[in-house]
Amino acid sequence: MQENGFESALKVNEGVDQPPVVNPYLGNFYKKNRTRLLTEEEYVNGIKAGNTTILSQAITLVESSLPEHRELAQKIISRCIHFATDSMRIGITGVPGAGKSTFIEAFGSLITNKGHKLAVLAIDPSSEKSKGSILGDKTRMETLCNDPNAFIRPSPSSGSLGGVARKTRESIILCEAAGYDVIFIETVGVGQSETAVHSMSDFFLLLMLAGAGDELQGIKRGIMEMSDLIAITKSDGNNREKATLARALYKNALHLFPPTDSGWEPTAVTTSSVTREGLEDVLEIIHKYFELTRANGYYLNKRREQSRYWMYETIQEDLRNRFYENEVVKSNLGHYENMVLEGKLSSFAAAGELIEKYNSTHKHNI
Amino acid sequence: MQENGFESALKVNEGVDQPPVVNPYLGNFYKKNRTRLLTEEEYVNGIKAGNTTILSQAITLVESSLPEHRELAQKIISRCIHFATDSMRIGITGVPGAGKSTFIEAFGSLITNKGHKLAVLAIDPSSEKSKGSILGDKTRMETLCNDPNAFIRPSPSSGSLGGVARKTRESIILCEAAGYDVIFIETVGVGQSETAVHSMSDFFLLLMLAGAGDELQGIKRGIMEMSDLIAITKSDGNNREKATLARALYKNALHLFPPTDSGWEPTAVTTSSVTREGLEDVLEIIHKYFELTRANGYYLNKRREQSRYWMYETIQEDLRNRFYENEVVKSNLGHYENMVLEGKLSSFAAAGELIEKYNSTHKHNI
Repeated sequence: MQENGFESALKVNEGVDQPPVVNPYLGNFYKKNRTRLLTEEEYVNGIKAGNTTILSQAITLVESSLPEHRELAQKIISRCIHFATDSMRIGITGVPGAGKSTFIEAFGSLITNKGHKLAVLAIDPSSEKSKGSILGDKTRMETLCNDPNAFIRPSPSSGSLGGVARKTRESIILCEAAGYDVIFIETVGVGQSETAVHSMSDFFLLLMLAGAGDELQGIKRGIMEMSDLIAITKSDGNNREKATLARALYKNALHLFPPTDSGWEPTAVTTSSVTREGLEDVLEIIHKYFELTRANGYYLNKRREQSRYWMYETIQEDLRNRFYENEVVKSNLGHYENMVLEGKLSSFAAAGELIEKYNSTHKHNI
Repeated sequence: MQENGFESALKVNEGVDQPPVVNPYLGNFYKKNRTRLLTEEEYVNGIKAGNTTILSQAITLVESSLPEHRELAQKIISRCIHFATDSMRIGITGVPGAGKSTFIEAFGSLITNKGHKLAVLAIDPSSEKSKGSILGDKTRMETLCNDPNAFIRPSPSSGSLGGVARKTRESIILCEAAGYDVIFIETVGVGQSETAVHSMSDFFLLLMLAGAGDELQGIKRGIMEMSDLIAITKSDGNNREKATLARALYKNALHLFPPTDSGWEPTAVTTSSVTREGLEDVLEIIHKYFELTRANGYYLNKRREQSRYWMYETIQEDLRNRFYENEVVKSNLGHYENMVLEGKLSSFAAAGELIEKYNSTHKHNI
């Protein structure tokens, strides 16, 4: 059987990150077949050779909360960072109902048919609760799931947005080292996760439905202005005329936005995952974007800036975790938050008192 | 002579926050006239009585970097928080050249003429370097500077954005306790400062010029989508027709944005600070906004959320400062940042090593 990313992801997910599954029907099957840890060398070589099972296992290490896994993961990443291809990292988000999974299925297949190797990753901190991640529903991406040139990995399902985003960004590096030259990073169009996706993508694609009414509910304001391309989806059948009109409206609106730092002029297209209308256009536009930004230096500059950004972001995430996981802070936070919400204490006084309590739990040597 | 906020701000600025000024022309004049610190009681009573000199001095304490000043400031704020009026906090930003200062001068005068007390504050972390803050140029706001019902305070001129924003937000509380029921918080339309202004305003006003070309350069993408009202300025003389056209374009574009959480529908107007066209409209729109959001509960909810946000933001700022001011971190940061920028080390490995170095400088008691 063809081993693909999604299957192997499921397989290795137990064993490394989670307690052994004791399914009454399976007995100790999973426990017995627990995947052993490979050596750093084996992981790196496996990834370089494009072995998706090993790639999946390495990503599982990235997602693990065990310190020894994290440490091994860091070693692997530090070596893989040097094999990164000249990839295209494409962030994809969209309004609920825009048909993100069918779009990714159709557009992704187009991309692998052109000879690219495609990795589909996701940032969806809410997936554990809402099960809303489209990648959780792999039945909608049957073609791509069985495509040997596609590697699909669901969102890390637990942790804060910062933690989830870090894991996804590290996974990008591993996928690129494994030869995937097109990376989709998808997210559901709510919350802060688009900003995280934007901060690790070269190109940002927004999927929209025709009709700017209720359909927009759920997408965060500000997303439109960070998009490099708006694709109006479901432009087929009766909907085609409406989609064409929407495209014209969005194109006009995009002209009113301040110019992008990249020198790129964002535009809008209509697409259909059924008739495949517009999918070639999307790819052509993406290629044009990369041509422009590779020529004017923006591509490399942005990548460097993103790396710097993620260094600072990771530091912040760590400082934050250390603070909020402190027992004294934990047991006092609710009280202070209530005082602030009720207007009994200023935000600053509350913060000051919490910090004082936190500092009293450790002391500086220097 | 009528004492106004700006003058007294200048007067008390030395003495508290800065080393004594030894101006060769003035000798020790300033030093001798150094403002003495009042008691907590005196500050609170002075502020409640609407004494602008004392208000200015209290804001200077807020801006001070001396721990004893900050502590006194916190005590004052904690008491003033209970006298806050049912104010309107209006964030104002705009593209360079949109005429923010003349707008604030004209619109502010309209507001005080209606019997309101107006405080104009600013967030401009760059003001020290660029001197770009419009409030630094008080000559452009002569009327307002001499208006007994207006209190004008330039942006705190040093520190990180987080620090500057905190100071401005604390100043809002003091101004409201002093009876100012309309607060303008202005910022230059670049960088991250709009987000900070947005996070402490009830209403966000964006000033734009007609013609969506080069004039947009310098304003950050995403600002338009956080605006409650876009005012096209300089709608006078030859420019009037262009402004009217721009207004129609922006109105259309605003309709394409996702709905606001407030239930408010952002709109666009044309204004002129010369002919005063549209200024009454702006005020009327603002009143409608407050009517709507006070009725539907959004006003109070947003204020509460902002307070919570600022508590967490202040904690973060403190953790960050503590980290980046650590000597070991300071002396290693540049090296790691370069390694990351040159692609020699992953963002995460660099962050990890810096954090390890930082942690080695202090230990937890528990």
